[in-house]
Amino acid sequence: MATTFELGDFVLQGGATLRGAQLTYETYGELAADKSNAIVYPTWYSGRHQDNEWLIGEGMALDPSRYFIIVPNMLGNGLSSSPSNTPPPYDRGRFPNVTMYDNVEAQYRLVTEHFGIERLPLVLGWSMGAGQTYQWAVSHPEMVERIAPFCGSSRCSYHNKVFLEGVKAALTADDAFQNGWYTSMPTKGLRAAARVYAGWGFSQAFYWDRLYERLGFSSLEDFLVGFWEGFFLDDRDPNNLLTMLWTWQNADVGRTPGFNGDTKAALASIKARAIVMPAEKDLYFPPEDEAWAVQHIPNAELRVIPGVWGHFAGNGINAEDTTFIDNALKELLAT
Amino acid sequence: MATTFELGDFVLQGGATLRGAQLTYETYGELAADKSNAIVYPTWYSGRHQDNEWLIGEGMALDPSRYFIIVPNMLGNGLSSSPSNTPPPYDRGRFPNVTMYDNVEAQYRLVTEHFGIERLPLVLGWSMGAGQTYQWAVSHPEMVERIAPFCGSSRCSYHNKVFLEGVKAALTADDAFQNGWYTSMPTKGLRAAARVYAGWGFSQAFYWDRLYERLGFSSLEDFLVGFWEGFFLDDRDPNNLLTMLWTWQNADVGRTPGFNGDTKAALASIKARAIVMPAEKDLYFPPEDEAWAVQHIPNAELRVIPGVWGHFAGNGINAEDTTFIDNALKELLAT
Repeated sequence: MATTFELGDFVLQGGATLRGAQLTYETYGELAADKSNAIVYPTWYSGRHQDNEWLIGEGMALDPSRYFIIVPNMLGNGLSSSPSNTPPPYDRGRFPNVTMYDNVEAQYRLVTEHFGIERLPLVLGWSMGAGQTYQWAVSHPEMVERIAPFCGSSRCSYHNKVFLEGVKAALTADDAFQNGWYTSMPTKGLRAAARVYAGWGFSQAFYWDRLYERLGFSSLEDFLVGFWEGFFLDDRDPNNLLTMLWTWQNADVGRTPGFNGDTKAALASIKARAIVMPAEKDLYFPPEDEAWAVQHIPNAELRVIPGVWGHFAGNGINAEDTTFIDNALKELLAT
Repeated sequence: MATTFELGDFVLQGGATLRGAQLTYETYGELAADKSNAIVYPTWYSGRHQDNEWLIGEGMALDPSRYFIIVPNMLGNGLSSSPSNTPPPYDRGRFPNVTMYDNVEAQYRLVTEHFGIERLPLVLGWSMGAGQTYQWAVSHPEMVERIAPFCGSSRCSYHNKVFLEGVKAALTADDAFQNGWYTSMPTKGLRAAARVYAGWGFSQAFYWDRLYERLGFSSLEDFLVGFWEGFFLDDRDPNNLLTMLWTWQNADVGRTPGFNGDTKAALASIKARAIVMPAEKDLYFPPEDEAWAVQHIPNAELRVIPGVWGHFAGNGINAEDTTFIDNALKELLAT
C-alpha cells in the first residue's frame, strides 16, 4: 500500500505553485536506526512504484532485509500530483510543466523531512528514472554516495526529443484529445502513440529474432495490440503522458540552479561513484551518449548491457539483463 | 518532361485490375542503337522521378552521355497510377494493394514493349527503390546484369513494419482522414506522420551533431517544421502515402510467383552481380539485414556507407555519401 507525502504549496522551477501537492511512494524493508541504509529508486515514463519491484528482492542487490528502498512516483504519473488528480485550476490541460529538478526536490523533501535521512548509499533508476538519478547526484552531491542510472541520460538528446515529438504528435492528432480537455478518452491517439513507441522500445534485432514470442505474443500484430496498445490503454491519462513527456524532453542536469545550462559542469560536480549502464541497442538512449556523460563524471564507469532487448533491457522482462544489472548494483554497493 | 506509358488493363498480384493503368517515367541520355546501355532507377517512398536526378550527370557513373537512364515512378506516387489520379471505382480509399512485384512488372513492360530492351546493365535504387531493384533481379534474372540497392532491403523486416505502423497510425489518427474519403486534407495527421518519421530518417548521431544546421535549418524545431512537415505537406496525398506504405510493408522477393514465400531461394536465384550498400546508421534498414541478404546472393558484395546520415545517406544531400555511392556504381559498371 503506497503512502502519500504532503508537499504543501510546492513551487516549481518554472514558477507555478502546485498547491496541496502530493508525492506518493512505496517503501521496501526497514530504515536502520542510524538511517544509513536508504536507497532511492524513482519511477520511469508512465511507470508506477510497483513496476520497479522486479529489481527488489531477497538475495538481490536491492535486498529489503538489508536496505530501506524508497520508490517515489514521478510527478505526472497519476499517483503523485498529476493532471488527472489535481483539482482546478491547475488540473488537466492546465497542469504546469515539471522538471527533473522539481521531481528530485519533492523526493528530497520526503527523504529528509519525513524520514530524516542524510545520506543515500545509492540512487538508481531506469529510463526517466535514470534521469532523476543523475539529477539527485547533481542536486545533492554531498548526500548521494553511489548512482546507477540505466538506459537513461543526464540530458535529453536532440534525437530523443524528436522521437518524443513523434509520440506526442500521434497522441494529439486525435480530435478527441481536444487540446487536453477531452470528454472521452482519445483512444485512437493513445493507440497511435503506442504504435509509434513500439518501434523505439525494442531493437531491430529483437524484432528480427521475434523475441516478442518469448513474451507470450502470438504474432507481430498481437504484440502491437496486446503489449503496446494495451500498455497505453492501461489507465494512462493523455495529459499525464504529456506532462511526463515534457519533463523528459526538457531534462538536463545543466539546468540545475547554479549551473546556468552547463551540462558538463553539472556532471563534473557529481561526487557519487557511478556505474552507468546503457543498453547496447537502445534506440533512444544509445551507449555513445552515455559514454559522453561518463567522460565528464569524476568517478564513473560505463558498463554496456549487451544484447538485443534495446531500451527494455532495463525493464525486468529479460532475465539475463536483470542479472547483469543486479550484479553491477551488488558490485557498486560493495565499494 | 515526364512521359506516360499506357499499361492498359493491368492485373495486380492481389487480383484487382487497374483499368487504364499508367506508368509515368523520365529518361536521361539516348538509347544506343543496339539497346545495350539502359539503366533502370526506380523511385522511393513518395519520391518522384526528378528526386533521383542528384545521382545522374556528366562524369558520374550514371552519365547520360553514355547510358540511357530510365526513372519509372512507383505506382502510388501520384504520377503513375495512384489513389489520387485514378477514376472511380478504384480511386482514393478504394485503390487496390500494389506489390513490389507489380511495380516491376509495369516497369518491365515499359522497358521491353515500349523500348524493346532485352538486357539491363544496371538496376539501382534507394530505399523502396532498392526494394524494386532486388525485385527486378529476382523477377528477371536473365535480363539484369548488375544491381546496386542502397539503404533498402529485399524483404521488409518486422522492425521496419513496426516503424511504418507508427507512421500510418499517426497519419490516420486525424479524424479528417475519414478512412480515406477526406474532403479536406488531414494536415494534422500528415504533420504528425512527419514528426514520427523525423526520428527514423536520420541517425541519433546526426541529431547530436546538429547536422540539420548544415542543411540550412536554424534549430531543431525549424528542421521538424521546415524539412519534415514541409516534406509531408508537399503534395503528398494521404491515400498515396498509404498505398506505397502497404507496398513497402509487404515487400518480399520471396513472394515472387514461383518462390512460395522463400526469400532465401529468391535471393539465391539472382544472377546479377550486386553491390549492396546499407548505411552504417540507417535505423530502419540496418546493415545487419543487408549482410544477411548478401549471404544468400551468389555474386554480391556488402559495402556499408560510413557516417552518421542514416537512411538519408542515400538521398543525395550529403556530398561524401554521394561520392561513396557513385564510386561503387562506377566500379560495378566497369566489371
